[in-house]
Amino acid sequence: MRALVDGQEGARVDPFDRGLQYGDGLFETIAVPESKPRFLDWHLERLTDGASRLGFPALDTELLRREVSAIGNGSRCIVKLVVTRGSGSRGYRPPQMPQLRRIVSASDWPPVAAGAGARVGWCRTRLGRNPDLAGLKHLNRLEQVLARSEWEDGVLDEGLMSDEAGNVIAATQANLFARINSRWVTPRLDQCGVAGIMRRAFCAWRASQGAAVEERQISRAEVESASALLLTNALVGAWPVRELAGRPVAVDAESTEFNAWLGGK
Amino acid sequence: MRALVDGQEGARVDPFDRGLQYGDGLFETIAVPESKPRFLDWHLERLTDGASRLGFPALDTELLRREVSAIGNGSRCIVKLVVTRGSGSRGYRPPQMPQLRRIVSASDWPPVAAGAGARVGWCRTRLGRNPDLAGLKHLNRLEQVLARSEWEDGVLDEGLMSDEAGNVIAATQANLFARINSRWVTPRLDQCGVAGIMRRAFCAWRASQGAAVEERQISRAEVESASALLLTNALVGAWPVRELAGRPVAVDAESTEFNAWLGGK
Repeated sequence: MRALVDGQEGARVDPFDRGLQYGDGLFETIAVPESKPRFLDWHLERLTDGASRLGFPALDTELLRREVSAIGNGSRCIVKLVVTRGSGSRGYRPPQMPQLRRIVSASDWPPVAAGAGARVGWCRTRLGRNPDLAGLKHLNRLEQVLARSEWEDGVLDEGLMSDEAGNVIAATQANLFARINSRWVTPRLDQCGVAGIMRRAFCAWRASQGAAVEERQISRAEVESASALLLTNALVGAWPVRELAGRPVAVDAESTEFNAWLGGK
Repeated sequence: MRALVDGQEGARVDPFDRGLQYGDGLFETIAVPESKPRFLDWHLERLTDGASRLGFPALDTELLRREVSAIGNGSRCIVKLVVTRGSGSRGYRPPQMPQLRRIVSASDWPPVAAGAGARVGWCRTRLGRNPDLAGLKHLNRLEQVLARSEWEDGVLDEGLMSDEAGNVIAATQANLFARINSRWVTPRLDQCGVAGIMRRAFCAWRASQGAAVEERQISRAEVESASALLLTNALVGAWPVRELAGRPVAVDAESTEFNAWLGGK
């Protein structure tokens, strides 16, 4: 892994950075399947929206765009873009004139066999509800860390998380779609969860076919009885679930169609 | 402000530190009123408990104790001790053998006039509920950052936060005690909030007088009609509230007695 910190290769981070002290920042995980960052405009749009909701000053998206390209270096990789509220003094209060910090890093494209289908379980760790933070890809991710600690590599591919009220929200690093009564449904993310870019892409693709995805509360019983389940994230695109808590789930052909469409992006 | 990163003065932090990437860490704010860190044993006990709940390997508390003393340098200051799960590769899953990172910093003792009493308001930002994280002083602090952004310096001294269910939990950086029917009551912290060391000290002091503090759910209406209110944190000790949302609150003499007792610690 290599990183640019405020544009400097190999630099390290001030220990008083508010991203480190409080998780006071946002991130994007951007797939570069060949040479071009996928959905970069949408990633920068979400980051800009998040920055506004957290009260950050305006982002220099052109600079971020250049740094994402520079770190990707025209090769297949995953780029992670972190923006924090920069360095601060003691206390939660944000500085009046924050100097945002950028950390742009690249890692190798990991081995993922989306076609094989995901084996998924239920996480014990719940998601707290907070509408002020819901939907944002912010740096407060301890819930996901605890949830991902619940299984060893190889046992499962992903774990589904519910909120404190018992609604199913997402997997630890993917959004969820369930086919219920012949229609794709995805959890509402107005109380918690991250509104993924690939979730947006899947919804846009379905809408372009005249079949809108329904966003609403989904119970665990509905997920367990769904006729098909899909996970989406920036890296895998759409990942059909083939097994939930040890029981087989029918793999829907639409993930293949969507991924083919995605291949042209 | 000065800092030791893994024992090195002036060092900076790996951008792949999990504290920065996910808030995967814990902290303590330790008052050094003269030369000696106050309640250091209790701080290290809470940190050890938090590390265990997050699945960290065992802490070297003797090393932490030495670094707290070294950075404090025998003078009046505030020491902040951050322990993260160290550097990681991509993804939420914790490394199998994490190398914990220590960031120990000191800042000047800020001007606080606790005796004058605090002017307190109600924060709009709520606290999400999650029993897995409740009580811990972890690095996911965006809720406090947003709450503290709600007022400018000088307008208020602190803001009270409620959880998503409407229970009053704490101030942004202090615990709350309310005198209700001649008895001190403090919010239960089994769903959210930070179990402060000074909260523990106040409860211990009351117990030593044969008058246990009651821990339970507290509504906003109860706080509004309490005969007295106190805030506690590592720095100020007990801080009586003199004004809540613009209305005067009677200042109880017990904060003075407690702070006098604290002066002997």
